[in-house]
Amino acid sequence: MKNLKTLLVKEPLKLDCGRTIENFPIAYETYGELNEKKDNAILVFHALTGDQFVTGINPITNKEGWWSYAVGPNKALDTNKFFVICANVIGGCMGSYGPSFKDPSTDKIIGTDFPVITINDMVNAQINLLDYFNIKKLFSVVGGSMGGMQVLQFVSNFPEKALTAIPIACTSSHSAQNIAFNELGRQAITADLNWKNGDYSNQNLNPSKGLSVARMAAHITYLSKKGLQEKFGRKLQERDDLKFGFDADFQIESYLRYQGSVFVDRFDANSYLYITRAMDYFDLAKKFNGNLSEAFANTKTKFFIISFTSDWLYPTQENKEIVIALNAIGADVGFVEIDSDKGHDSFLLDVPDFLSALKNFLDKSYK
Amino acid sequence: MKNLKTLLVKEPLKLDCGRTIENFPIAYETYGELNEKKDNAILVFHALTGDQFVTGINPITNKEGWWSYAVGPNKALDTNKFFVICANVIGGCMGSYGPSFKDPSTDKIIGTDFPVITINDMVNAQINLLDYFNIKKLFSVVGGSMGGMQVLQFVSNFPEKALTAIPIACTSSHSAQNIAFNELGRQAITADLNWKNGDYSNQNLNPSKGLSVARMAAHITYLSKKGLQEKFGRKLQERDDLKFGFDADFQIESYLRYQGSVFVDRFDANSYLYITRAMDYFDLAKKFNGNLSEAFANTKTKFFIISFTSDWLYPTQENKEIVIALNAIGADVGFVEIDSDKGHDSFLLDVPDFLSALKNFLDKSYK
Repeated sequence: MKNLKTLLVKEPLKLDCGRTIENFPIAYETYGELNEKKDNAILVFHALTGDQFVTGINPITNKEGWWSYAVGPNKALDTNKFFVICANVIGGCMGSYGPSFKDPSTDKIIGTDFPVITINDMVNAQINLLDYFNIKKLFSVVGGSMGGMQVLQFVSNFPEKALTAIPIACTSSHSAQNIAFNELGRQAITADLNWKNGDYSNQNLNPSKGLSVARMAAHITYLSKKGLQEKFGRKLQERDDLKFGFDADFQIESYLRYQGSVFVDRFDANSYLYITRAMDYFDLAKKFNGNLSEAFANTKTKFFIISFTSDWLYPTQENKEIVIALNAIGADVGFVEIDSDKGHDSFLLDVPDFLSALKNFLDKSYK
Repeated sequence: MKNLKTLLVKEPLKLDCGRTIENFPIAYETYGELNEKKDNAILVFHALTGDQFVTGINPITNKEGWWSYAVGPNKALDTNKFFVICANVIGGCMGSYGPSFKDPSTDKIIGTDFPVITINDMVNAQINLLDYFNIKKLFSVVGGSMGGMQVLQFVSNFPEKALTAIPIACTSSHSAQNIAFNELGRQAITADLNWKNGDYSNQNLNPSKGLSVARMAAHITYLSKKGLQEKFGRKLQERDDLKFGFDADFQIESYLRYQGSVFVDRFDANSYLYITRAMDYFDLAKKFNGNLSEAFANTKTKFFIISFTSDWLYPTQENKEIVIALNAIGADVGFVEIDSDKGHDSFLLDVPDFLSALKNFLDKSYK
């Protein structure tokens, strides 16, 4: 990963856990051009397993960037018009400071010596990109899922730094069911004998089976029951009838196994532990005694909140709670629930109603 | 497990996979007394991880039987009135023929030499209990979840053998999402290096970490999002604040870990593979070219179908499809959707509306 664009943050950053980090890298990418007035920048926040390669070919995975449907020339986040920035979150494994970071002083991968971080820490790390690009105020902060949580945290922390904000398919507080699914993934990883208390990299091992199971679990939650039924149902995988064995008889089994197997090639198991932990810790109203509105007190940011009908991971109800909290303080907030059978993953997919809503809001808000 | 009541089935049983088994044990329990006319017998079918110990103290686990709320003197399945029979399914691990069976000729646990079985095979094995007790016709067949699938299969196979039938919180065909969750569990088990291709018992090993992860995954699906939120929310586990580590900070994490850990003491990992496979293979309409009504052609059985509002594993819609198929052929069918926040597990819990509906149907149907 030598050729990744990286900002070395020299300033100390005090983390929520109490530890302070400094001289740490943030890997980022940009798309489009920053204009002279520097008022056309959009900071995109990625989700749990995303990275800075939003669009075009990801040079590490050689696959399309995770938000290619939404970002590019003439797309919703129009790179002919906007300057799109995206950074790998701290805790991640695509060049930013995280558990797969090699400590130059010991030449060892730090693993679980990495501190437990929060969504707040992620956002406070990324604010350094604004100074680096000399941007006083972003035109927008945008993200889905964990990216949406970062949007909310960003606006709460830096109310003057974003003209508009688009939290998509997210929540202001991780629910018990979401914590449960994340814990399941963590248990799958740490159950793998190759995890070695997080020190697997230094022992040339990889808890890939556990990580694969974690990914499969998460993947089920990203899709809707109806969408799965329509796409897979009980279709068989390259066979005329059931084989009465434990190979993948059904296409859904084969699909899940594939999703697990390709994931382990691109993602670090410890990063999965740390980032899911950060999501579970997310509860924006907590330091305001449960009053979410106060997290956005005096905000002048214009919000546009988007949810999807079939998203059962971050259902419309949880997105609406953010709308309600913003309305309660008279904030400028728009909301749309997009009809889609594609579940939580809708925000990553070719869902025309979603993409046009996103484009219309951005285009109409930009002068 | 020496003291389990067991019926040795000597007759050959041809399984759906093509293999034939004979001289195999079925472990069973009974509650109440069979009357002289032998018309008061209820066959209860258990769910994935259930067993024959429906009520009272299970002598193996020393815990209450899995359906103690519903079965007992003056309860819905009133043992003052009815003779309740329940057998451990074949494929199970509580004394019936399954992968933990020790082959007397080799003195080895058969493990994955056990044949892949189906719901149809389970039911065809249990019909032997009727001959054994000299029961011509059961008063009722009752079961929830996989138990409900067995109810449907039983009535389809033996239309003259049950006066009434109560399938609860089930489906006539496993959905893609349900197959996906089961496959996740199987992958978790087989990912455990101690699984040893199913031969763990002969090597004095146990894939308990993998089985525990499988149980945690399943457990999440048994509860509703709302129920989890109300019961656990973001409550912390014996601590005042987050600890910034990977121990169980949240009660929901602690709860899931506990559910996983107690499960591995009572359940066999290979049984989990086989029984989930049987559930995934279940598609009652398949041999009738997708026409579910034909599975019940000429049935005279009186059906009562029960679903729960917050059950997302076998949602009301899937239960209703059975009602519709039965109505289409003019069968005698009642249906009730019980309002409950307790998810799929509602049928196992103290849900008064459910228990009274069950009791009323049975009492009024019994002369």
